[in-house]
Amino acid sequence: MTDNVEAEYDEYLAAGRIWGLVDRNRIKKIKFPRLSPDIVKRYLAIDDLTTSVSDVLDSLGIDGAVPASYLRPLSTGQKCVGPAITIRNILERKTPTQGYVDKEPIRMSTRDIYYLAEPGDVLVTDTGGDLSISNMGGQSCAVAKTVGLAGSIVYGAVRDANTIRASGYPVWSCGVTPITGKFRIEAIEMNGPVTLHDVRVNPGDLMVADDSGVCVVPYEHVEHVITEVEKIAAAEERMTSLILSGAPISELRPLFRKRYS
Amino acid sequence: MTDNVEAEYDEYLAAGRIWGLVDRNRIKKIKFPRLSPDIVKRYLAIDDLTTSVSDVLDSLGIDGAVPASYLRPLSTGQKCVGPAITIRNILERKTPTQGYVDKEPIRMSTRDIYYLAEPGDVLVTDTGGDLSISNMGGQSCAVAKTVGLAGSIVYGAVRDANTIRASGYPVWSCGVTPITGKFRIEAIEMNGPVTLHDVRVNPGDLMVADDSGVCVVPYEHVEHVITEVEKIAAAEERMTSLILSGAPISELRPLFRKRYS
Amino acid sequence: MTDNVEAEYDEYLAAGRIWGLVDRNRIKKIKFPRLSPDIVKRYLAIDDLTTSVSDVLDSLGIDGAVPASYLRPLSTGQKCVGPAITIRNILERKTPTQGYVDKEPIRMSTRDIYYLAEPGDVLVTDTGGDLSISNMGGQSCAVAKTVGLAGSIVYGAVRDANTIRASGYPVWSCGVTPITGKFRIEAIEMNGPVTLHDVRVNPGDLMVADDSGVCVVPYEHVEHVITEVEKIAAAEERMTSLILSGAPISELRPLFRKRYS
Amino acid sequence: MTDNVEAEYDEYLAAGRIWGLVDRNRIKKIKFPRLSPDIVKRYLAIDDLTTSVSDVLDSLGIDGAVPASYLRPLSTGQKCVGPAITIRNILERKTPTQGYVDKEPIRMSTRDIYYLAEPGDVLVTDTGGDLSISNMGGQSCAVAKTVGLAGSIVYGAVRDANTIRASGYPVWSCGVTPITGKFRIEAIEMNGPVTLHDVRVNPGDLMVADDSGVCVVPYEHVEHVITEVEKIAAAEERMTSLILSGAPISELRPLFRKRYS
Amino acid sequence: MTDNVEAEYDEYLAAGRIWGLVDRNRIKKIKFPRLSPDIVKRYLAIDDLTTSVSDVLDSLGIDGAVPASYLRPLSTGQKCVGPAITIRNILERKTPTQGYVDKEPIRMSTRDIYYLAEPGDVLVTDTGGDLSISNMGGQSCAVAKTVGLAGSIVYGAVRDANTIRASGYPVWSCGVTPITGKFRIEAIEMNGPVTLHDVRVNPGDLMVADDSGVCVVPYEHVEHVITEVEKIAAAEERMTSLILSGAPISELRPLFRKRYS
Amino acid sequence: MTDNVEAEYDEYLAAGRIWGLVDRNRIKKIKFPRLSPDIVKRYLAIDDLTTSVSDVLDSLGIDGAVPASYLRPLSTGQKCVGPAITIRNILERKTPTQGYVDKEPIRMSTRDIYYLAEPGDVLVTDTGGDLSISNMGGQSCAVAKTVGLAGSIVYGAVRDANTIRASGYPVWSCGVTPITGKFRIEAIEMNGPVTLHDVRVNPGDLMVADDSGVCVVPYEHVEHVITEVEKIAAAEERMTSLILSGAPISELRPLFRKRYS
Repeated sequence: MTDNVEAEYDEYLAAGRIWGLVDRNRIKKIKFPRLSPDIVKRYLAIDDLTTSVSDVLDSLGIDGAVPASYLRPLSTGQKCVGPAITIRNILERKTPTQGYVDKEPIRMSTRDIYYLAEPGDVLVTDTGGDLSISNMGGQSCAVAKTVGLAGSIVYGAVRDANTIRASGYPVWSCGVTPITGKFRIEAIEMNGPVTLHDVRVNPGDLMVADDSGVCVVPYEHVEHVITEVEKIAAAEERMTSLILSGAPISELRPLFRKRYS
Repeated sequence: MTDNVEAEYDEYLAAGRIWGLVDRNRIKKIKFPRLSPDIVKRYLAIDDLTTSVSDVLDSLGIDGAVPASYLRPLSTGQKCVGPAITIRNILERKTPTQGYVDKEPIRMSTRDIYYLAEPGDVLVTDTGGDLSISNMGGQSCAVAKTVGLAGSIVYGAVRDANTIRASGYPVWSCGVTPITGKFRIEAIEMNGPVTLHDVRVNPGDLMVADDSGVCVVPYEHVEHVITEVEKIAAAEERMTSLILSGAPISELRPLFRKRYS
Repeated sequence: MTDNVEAEYDEYLAAGRIWGLVDRNRIKKIKFPRLSPDIVKRYLAIDDLTTSVSDVLDSLGIDGAVPASYLRPLSTGQKCVGPAITIRNILERKTPTQGYVDKEPIRMSTRDIYYLAEPGDVLVTDTGGDLSISNMGGQSCAVAKTVGLAGSIVYGAVRDANTIRASGYPVWSCGVTPITGKFRIEAIEMNGPVTLHDVRVNPGDLMVADDSGVCVVPYEHVEHVITEVEKIAAAEERMTSLILSGAPISELRPLFRKRYS
Repeated sequence: MTDNVEAEYDEYLAAGRIWGLVDRNRIKKIKFPRLSPDIVKRYLAIDDLTTSVSDVLDSLGIDGAVPASYLRPLSTGQKCVGPAITIRNILERKTPTQGYVDKEPIRMSTRDIYYLAEPGDVLVTDTGGDLSISNMGGQSCAVAKTVGLAGSIVYGAVRDANTIRASGYPVWSCGVTPITGKFRIEAIEMNGPVTLHDVRVNPGDLMVADDSGVCVVPYEHVEHVITEVEKIAAAEERMTSLILSGAPISELRPLFRKRYS
Repeated sequence: MTDNVEAEYDEYLAAGRIWGLVDRNRIKKIKFPRLSPDIVKRYLAIDDLTTSVSDVLDSLGIDGAVPASYLRPLSTGQKCVGPAITIRNILERKTPTQGYVDKEPIRMSTRDIYYLAEPGDVLVTDTGGDLSISNMGGQSCAVAKTVGLAGSIVYGAVRDANTIRASGYPVWSCGVTPITGKFRIEAIEMNGPVTLHDVRVNPGDLMVADDSGVCVVPYEHVEHVITEVEKIAAAEERMTSLILSGAPISELRPLFRKRYS
Repeated sequence: MTDNVEAEYDEYLAAGRIWGLVDRNRIKKIKFPRLSPDIVKRYLAIDDLTTSVSDVLDSLGIDGAVPASYLRPLSTGQKCVGPAITIRNILERKTPTQGYVDKEPIRMSTRDIYYLAEPGDVLVTDTGGDLSISNMGGQSCAVAKTVGLAGSIVYGAVRDANTIRASGYPVWSCGVTPITGKFRIEAIEMNGPVTLHDVRVNPGDLMVADDSGVCVVPYEHVEHVITEVEKIAAAEERMTSLILSGAPISELRPLFRKRYS
């Protein structure tokens, strides 16, 4: 933990924002630069958002997209954009039964990070893509909504699927399960780098998610990407109107070529 | 087949409740103790049912939950609770084509068990998690509804997905397929122990299923589990209201700790 | 390319129906016999269509069904019937980044085949079941609708899931992704034989898809299959009414036996 | 348990052949007809045994072969032929930790079946292809060798791989693990039907295994199969000598055609 | 089939080099440029061949390596280098049982391509990575050896593992099986482009295989790649001697940096 | 990085033991308590080591064993025991091609940790079980041998399989590949906690590996575990001699019971 984090932790403690399940030396960052809400709005205005973002990341030589084949929205038709805050979990050493027998303290926690978050943040949790152990449930999502998170992207499983769907809070996950993470997983690091399927997320990167999947825009590229995405969106829209109007190939082909060369 | 089953089979035969595709020595149990409908009602009254049940099973050192990652509801938003009746299927030895050529008798059967069932029972079929071969289709579910089953949980695949969804009959399965089980699988045992993913089911156990997955409550724990679940549900509800009302950490933390220690 | 295709290509070129991304020697067939729309209508009239079709294919010793476990509809409740037109894709040799750097031409293409298609055709693309690379997106589906395709069946992934769902155009695929196929896949053959999971499709075969999965009816069996399917459907309907009316086993059993022996 | 088994159990008990971990009503058969050792010898004399056997099973319309891709020999270059004795295991309901805490009795057992076996038998265990839980280890194989078993085929995992390899006792399994089956699996049935990958085994069927995989020859076809296999082997040998002598296509082709038409 | 292939086919037919199971219009190329044996020798002289080749392909932005995790040598310690000849197989439409019943002609074939091959060629077959169906067995490998092939790389399974190992003929495959490809797969194309896992092979490309896996060097890069590989090998050898002699970091680091920047 | 590590890093830098590819703040520990070589010897003296260790871990309620089904030895018949030093890798954000184009520095490194290690240490690397990207090759293993490591356990893939096998240096890995980790993975942390399949490793834990798989003994349990293992080994040996001498069930059963109750 750097000196900064040390001081920030004390500041947040004084402000009543420390839940306290996770040891302070597991928190890598507390304050870090966030994108302006204006940029988030520009992203949210785009249809088929992740596909255009993925195309621009391709042009930058960046692996930044995770297919919904692997990381599915709990409800279709939702969109989520915001800076990443992160938790990385690893498995407990004791079996859950032994944990119960020994009355071990609980070492998984989403609470701790919710109260460190800023409104509009997107929680990203990395439990290695596990399909059986829950990273969060309905009550956890209630906290997330209350503190103003924009959504959660879980490289692992969630529970209380029905309650989460009913709440309208947007969640992407690898799987759904009734099985608690308590006595099973431990939050080993908060606001450090994590991995979604085969894509890396640093805290502060822009998370972008819709029905097609999830994209991670590195913080330093956020403005360039939306500018390019807006150009693509405009070109695609023109193209689509032409298509729907039954325009002949001879009219469509040059526009198509223009975009891809 | 024990003497009991022998006698019960004859009784059911006389009563016109024997369909007759499955040999009588493959039926392990016909009559067995069922839970009172009152207990089923208490389970049905709980929100996020499988997650609370899973937590209590954890405290008992019992592996009893299957994630919806592996065993999905055909329609979201449904709930199903009732005592298990079971079928275990294994693959036929002849290829389906050879079965057709030789006009083999059909050896898969859900019909036989439907007519042995009591209203409120939940059918559990074990075909080893196969994703291609159907265990039951729309017509089979029509029989299930008619005899009053509460739902079906299929460790395998089902067909006629659209008809089943339209019927409102609740089904959980590993997959969906058009391919018949006829000439492919054989009902090797009825009302014996079966396996769902990695969880064991004995006939008479309480099946509990919702959007998060499926739980199996061993018959002997059914009352203890619902009593504990009701306590959890009450505590969670209080906690959630506090969260939604924006209560500070200092108020929430002690309640959280109380539940988990 | 046979002489026929050579001549047909020139004819279509003159008619403005050649998009031109795909080399002409990769197109195996342009004109081929299609089923009469009357037969398509008879198929569309059947409930639980793929399950009955699968049963008749079984009786012919033909492997022709792909479970929805592997090839899922993007929206439930849709049905699609029509003659197959096909694209087979393989991976590009250069990495996508190198493709960008070298400004490689785009070698994937659904455009080319759309304009060769007849209204009512069903596009079948084979990208080996890949879950990450998109075969087509919202704009591509807009073209498909405009030229009158009945649907698309993608042994691979698609993108713009939300736009496709909103359009009502029926699509079955293995997965959903934001990642473009441009610089990743190449259309190596059009209107040649392709594979869906473990089932072969020749151009002109009848594709039949619903919530339970996809069936491929070889061109030469299309009439026989629907005739048998109609018989099954009638028998099933009679059986289902009896079941719903609570008919006793003694009445149901002979009908059941009749169908399967 | 039939009356036969009841009497046979008492006979074996008196003879000191009952180990006693497994309840007697879980044993389906004790005595059943075995193949003559002469037939086993004829099988053992064939090179590339499983491939020829698989070909003959194909001609009978029987699914009877499991690829070594799924069921691997622990050591290459071994061959195993003999009648099947079977164990089916399912998972315990309690977690292993709870089992330890409660001092549960051990419910897995290979001991029980070894002492019921006849020399030359092949043990087949079905634990659903699990890759983590051991079905047997070095000491268990020592018992198997002592009582004269011809080998073990494990649809699951084994442990003490090094000791088993050193002993020369032939074992095929899905995986290798250090993790005991004690407190994890229960022997639910002995000498009943079991499943290997997607192939069914009845006790008394002939197991045939080599580096290419495992075949199951149904008891009633054992003589027919070896007779056909011997014909194939002779034809193949003649063909191979011609090939190695550099015979021209014109000489080879008619022999090839003869075999396959 | 181009005019060239037409003429070459007739030439080979006259020379007794046409086996004749595969229709002539499924053969894309017969004669094509091969690498000089001198270049093959330079490749064979390199230790840890595929890793150096993979590094050079990386520097060219080419996806050309398949891990042995997916494509394993049947025997360890072998190396194989030579120009690719290719077969692509797809599944038969009829079930194998129906194929037997109808006495279908055999449509899989390695024989046809062996007699079209030149000594030193490497056979590459693409059956989509299937783990159950054999692409070739011991007798087929005997033909391969006789005509002088350098090895076979099978994106699928092989049989007669023991005979192949004994023969010393080098084979890489995804799996091992006893199950024949006859009545299961059809050779849909010879000497066209194929796919190994996720890497493309054109006939004439250089195949390079060892214990670490398989690399495909595009024909046009073969000379550049070996020249670079030889430089790497020399540098690595120097580095390794220094390491083994216990040279300090200060001496090793500059050499390491030199290679990678 | 704690103050300790800061000081230790400077000490090692002065001693010429810092390779310098990995930033100092990614190193969590440099000096930590190691087990006495005497204890390592006691472990090495046990046959079927991992199975006995796994049994004792079970009795402690600790998940500490990884099956060889998932983490295989490169050569059979080897054994490895020693304290863990750890590297955790995550994927690079740029594609490998972009890394080449931009001449990125190399961020994977085993060199850095080798020179921080003590003789007898076992390197554990965690790349999430990836089967395609190499964590280390022949030259890296040469360094490992030179500095006296006891072996490497790689939750990921390795390359130069042949050279590693020839060197006799013991390696366990998930897979084998020719593809470099350079420009693909980054060493995100050294000597922090890592995960093997589903088991956690802290630096200083005792790694124990043989043909059956890998076990992790938490540092605090190392002495207790070997003491229990020695008791088991003695009992098993006595049991095995009795078995091989043909002792009757009546003599074996009580010994068997004694061990497990």
